Amino acid sequence: MSIMTRIEQALEQPFKWADSATAPPRLMAAMRHAVFPGGARIRPQLCLAVARACGEDAPELTNAAAVGIELLHCASLVHDDMPCFDDADTRRGLVTVHKQFGEPLALLAGDALIVMAYQTLARAGAAHPARLAPLLMTLCEGTGAPDGIVAGQAWECEPRVQLGRYQRAKTGALFVASTCAGAQAAGADPLPWRALGDALGEAYQVADDIRDVMGADHLGKPVGQDAAHGRPSTAAELGLVGAVDYFRRLMQSAVDSVPACPSRGAMQQLVLQESERLLPKSACDQIAVQAVQQAALQRRAVA
Amino acid sequence: MSIMTRIEQALEQPFKWADSATAPPRLMAAMRHAVFPGGARIRPQLCLAVARACGEDAPELTNAAAVGIELLHCASLVHDDMPCFDDADTRRGLVTVHKQFGEPLALLAGDALIVMAYQTLARAGAAHPARLAPLLMTLCEGTGAPDGIVAGQAWECEPRVQLGRYQRAKTGALFVASTCAGAQAAGADPLPWRALGDALGEAYQVADDIRDVMGADHLGKPVGQDAAHGRPSTAAELGLVGAVDYFRRLMQSAVDSVPACPSRGAMQQLVLQESERLLPKSACDQIAVQAVQQAALQRRAVA
Repeated sequence: MSIMTRIEQALEQPFKWADSATAPPRLMAAMRHAVFPGGARIRPQLCLAVARACGEDAPELTNAAAVGIELLHCASLVHDDMPCFDDADTRRGLVTVHKQFGEPLALLAGDALIVMAYQTLARAGAAHPARLAPLLMTLCEGTGAPDGIVAGQAWECEPRVQLGRYQRAKTGALFVASTCAGAQAAGADPLPWRALGDALGEAYQVADDIRDVMGADHLGKPVGQDAAHGRPSTAAELGLVGAVDYFRRLMQSAVDSVPACPSRGAMQQLVLQESERLLPKSACDQIAVQAVQQAALQRRAVA
Repeated sequence: MSIMTRIEQALEQPFKWADSATAPPRLMAAMRHAVFPGGARIRPQLCLAVARACGEDAPELTNAAAVGIELLHCASLVHDDMPCFDDADTRRGLVTVHKQFGEPLALLAGDALIVMAYQTLARAGAAHPARLAPLLMTLCEGTGAPDGIVAGQAWECEPRVQLGRYQRAKTGALFVASTCAGAQAAGADPLPWRALGDALGEAYQVADDIRDVMGADHLGKPVGQDAAHGRPSTAAELGLVGAVDYFRRLMQSAVDSVPACPSRGAMQQLVLQESERLLPKSACDQIAVQAVQQAALQRRAVA
């Protein structure tokens, strides 16, 4: 079974459990709309890959951790798309949840997805009680206060914000949770896998900032949102060329951070693939060429 | 230490853990505003009382379960007060979270409180791994889909709704979680305690409906909201006298449901106290007298 098939099948499971005759049908439909069809499922992929690298021995628990993380991610997208934040019409090329089902159900679908994430972990954790509490802590730290993705989003409501702290929380926290949970689900120490999550998370946010400026987003989201909402952005802070350079260095440090393990090469390959998906090398080169041409034009204008 | 002091001290704990230098200060303030000062804290009281009745042997775990339930309750109030639902200005006599901090922070504070609830349980559960998964399941079932409080709220977005199912989910589910979690935290079977939570939860919702019609709410919420929002209501369905009668029968069945245990009398006393707080006997009698007078007037008008 491919890793993507495994993820999609595992994601179906909590919906099967929840979809009883007593469930409000429109809530269930809104929750499904938020999760299917998905994006790249990079966080669960990462979680499963790390678990394998750590000698996975409890696949149901790994699945639950990966599903929990993806559900938390989807919940955050639903709430971030709502009118009081991005007021986005589209996500992953589809109409956003609040546009399709209304604000009340979008709010509740996000809440219910957060709960579903912890419930999925609780079900699988019953058979592995010693691993449950640390896994739960990892998922909670990646999501809540003080440093999880909800806190990251909340930095947008503060008068002053450090770009690094904002990005580490808003995006990085759930990547760190993905690598650490993968290790914990396999009964391994999560610490050696933190750096990989950290670097990938920051790279992901930088790539997002760059695509938002380039106006060429292929993830089905509207572009130009950072400037429109006055959000902190690496592209605004370092310029496009500086941001691309920073992205490349982050990806290199992600590759270098993979700890020694039998599947180190395969894991590094996954990171490089993800790098290409996030920001294709051709796009990076194009940005560099345009910058050189622009500088030459400016020199000519001055001369 | 009184039970209320114990609850307030336990509720402070997760905020101490979360309130680091890296936390967004306004998010933390919004979360505190949602939780302090509290209302009657009836759910955590119930949880602690059942744990005691079951021979409590892990007070830190009981505290965590009680705190988790109260945080989930507070999160639901924050989201239910938002403009896309009740659009309420006041709660517990104070300005609502979105009125004080804006909609974005209200949305995020609710999310972060849900996560904090599970995190509190995870921390305490590490020392009692065998009890953690069942406790988590109880809290998740009380909150999410298909039958928890979020699903209950979602029934307001459906074209058709059964009053009983709506009330059992919207309010009853977290009362059931309170009694069951109390038993589970003490290592006892939760099943004998379900009926108490069920009856209390429904009684609580019926009392809420009655107060909303009587226009004499003492919980610091605006009144007349059910009719204004076209929500299902026992008072609308059975009339005031019928609703009061139903409330009394529910409270009696709550009293009768308390299982045999050394503190059965004390537990029944707590239920009776709560009944009086929810809907004082004087108010019930007044409604009955008014109904008799009105009927007499109608008879005279006909004659």
